[in-house]
Amino acid sequence: MRRFALQVQYDGTDFAGFQLQKPGVRTVQGVLEATLLRLTGENIRVHGSGRTDAGVHATGQMVHFDSEWAVPEAKIAVALNQVLPSDVRIFRGWVAPSDFHARFKATQRTYLYTILNREEPSALSTRFVWHLREPLEIEVMQEAALVLTGSHDFATFGAPDAPGKSTVRCIEAITVTREDALLRVKIVGNAFLRQQVRAFVGTLVHAGRGRCDAGYVQEILESRDRSRCPLIAPARGLCLVNVCYSGERINHENLFGEAERNYT
Amino acid sequence: MRRFALQVQYDGTDFAGFQLQKPGVRTVQGVLEATLLRLTGENIRVHGSGRTDAGVHATGQMVHFDSEWAVPEAKIAVALNQVLPSDVRIFRGWVAPSDFHARFKATQRTYLYTILNREEPSALSTRFVWHLREPLEIEVMQEAALVLTGSHDFATFGAPDAPGKSTVRCIEAITVTREDALLRVKIVGNAFLRQQVRAFVGTLVHAGRGRCDAGYVQEILESRDRSRCPLIAPARGLCLVNVCYSGERINHENLFGEAERNYT
Repeated sequence: MRRFALQVQYDGTDFAGFQLQKPGVRTVQGVLEATLLRLTGENIRVHGSGRTDAGVHATGQMVHFDSEWAVPEAKIAVALNQVLPSDVRIFRGWVAPSDFHARFKATQRTYLYTILNREEPSALSTRFVWHLREPLEIEVMQEAALVLTGSHDFATFGAPDAPGKSTVRCIEAITVTREDALLRVKIVGNAFLRQQVRAFVGTLVHAGRGRCDAGYVQEILESRDRSRCPLIAPARGLCLVNVCYSGERINHENLFGEAERNYT
Repeated sequence: MRRFALQVQYDGTDFAGFQLQKPGVRTVQGVLEATLLRLTGENIRVHGSGRTDAGVHATGQMVHFDSEWAVPEAKIAVALNQVLPSDVRIFRGWVAPSDFHARFKATQRTYLYTILNREEPSALSTRFVWHLREPLEIEVMQEAALVLTGSHDFATFGAPDAPGKSTVRCIEAITVTREDALLRVKIVGNAFLRQQVRAFVGTLVHAGRGRCDAGYVQEILESRDRSRCPLIAPARGLCLVNVCYSGERINHENLFGEAERNYT
């Protein structure tokens, strides 16, 4: 029995999210497990670094699973990619230490949210961006982003995995940048509440539209009242780009640093 | 009656090309004409700057049509985008001079072909790139590209619109550039034979793989023998990015110069 690790990419448009649901619902986990059954004959349970919502994409999702699969390490990704549908690709696959865990050993997750901020729409990026016509004030968004950085109780911006669990998370950095019409929000944190990233981006857009300022964002953060979150950004602009692990025993070049340029 | 001009974008993945075919076959022209019928009640014939094959994309396709449609000029694009499917977007629409013709007045067309040249695939750009694992030698491709530049009889690389018509075309420039794993071939010409761009890219890739050199490309060009074209690149990497018109009477900022950064 070996423990396998995969860096997985997916175009989330045609998925009901990462996590397995009832039969007939297309999920990334379901597709991965069905592919592994076909390749190995085993009923394999795949563990992801975390859930992504319906429509959310990934270039750096991490998963692990245990199997007797006798594939040579160098052929893991190629073998899977030959069977997987084209909207799921294995960026890399390798044999991990037996105590590696895609979710519990993750120390940092990075999400990238992309907004197309101009009058004209775009047919080619429609699956991957939130198109907003009115010009966003990036400086106001940057100020609001600073309020959301650090360790806080983020109950205003998302739900924990189970009722009653902590809603405190540590957000290491939020950067808001503009390159021509593309406005990108990059968010790095140890872990995230459900919908937290989309609630953050919605709030920043609310500020960028001039409807609130950093002081107001501070106020709703302190309220810990979910009904005060002004806006949830749509899933399609969001991409899980990287998951980091503590370095001691996980020895793989791609685990430390941004997995890949975002090619969308 | 007014003559309308549109700059059209489409994700060609789910289209059988631009040009209208038999009923039941999804084409860009068919979708545009159905949308105009719904908006205006008129049976409108749409004229494109040229055909694109099944699976080929566009950010700068140009079309024109005549209509009694009373829409204000500033609302043309918005009105169409509200009805069109999300894989076709009107970048801009305006009222053109009555002698404007999207095809016959076009003086220059620019195509961009994108190759993802690395071991790892990409789930998010799979609709828009040709994924080639083996490293391509860009210098060899650039030398071969020079051979294909200029006015020549390009019978080796494509067919004319009708049998017996001229296969001479003027290729103004072919540039091959690399940015990390993305290799881009940009081709500017007055007009193109059917499949010419994909035949050019296939030939350049053949050279970049070390299977032929510029001298061989010269030899097959001079042969004017289609059976000697070594490779046709797949449609999905190709995008029509710009069409230019002679400036006298066509007064629209976007007609002169590259329409848009390629957001794929």
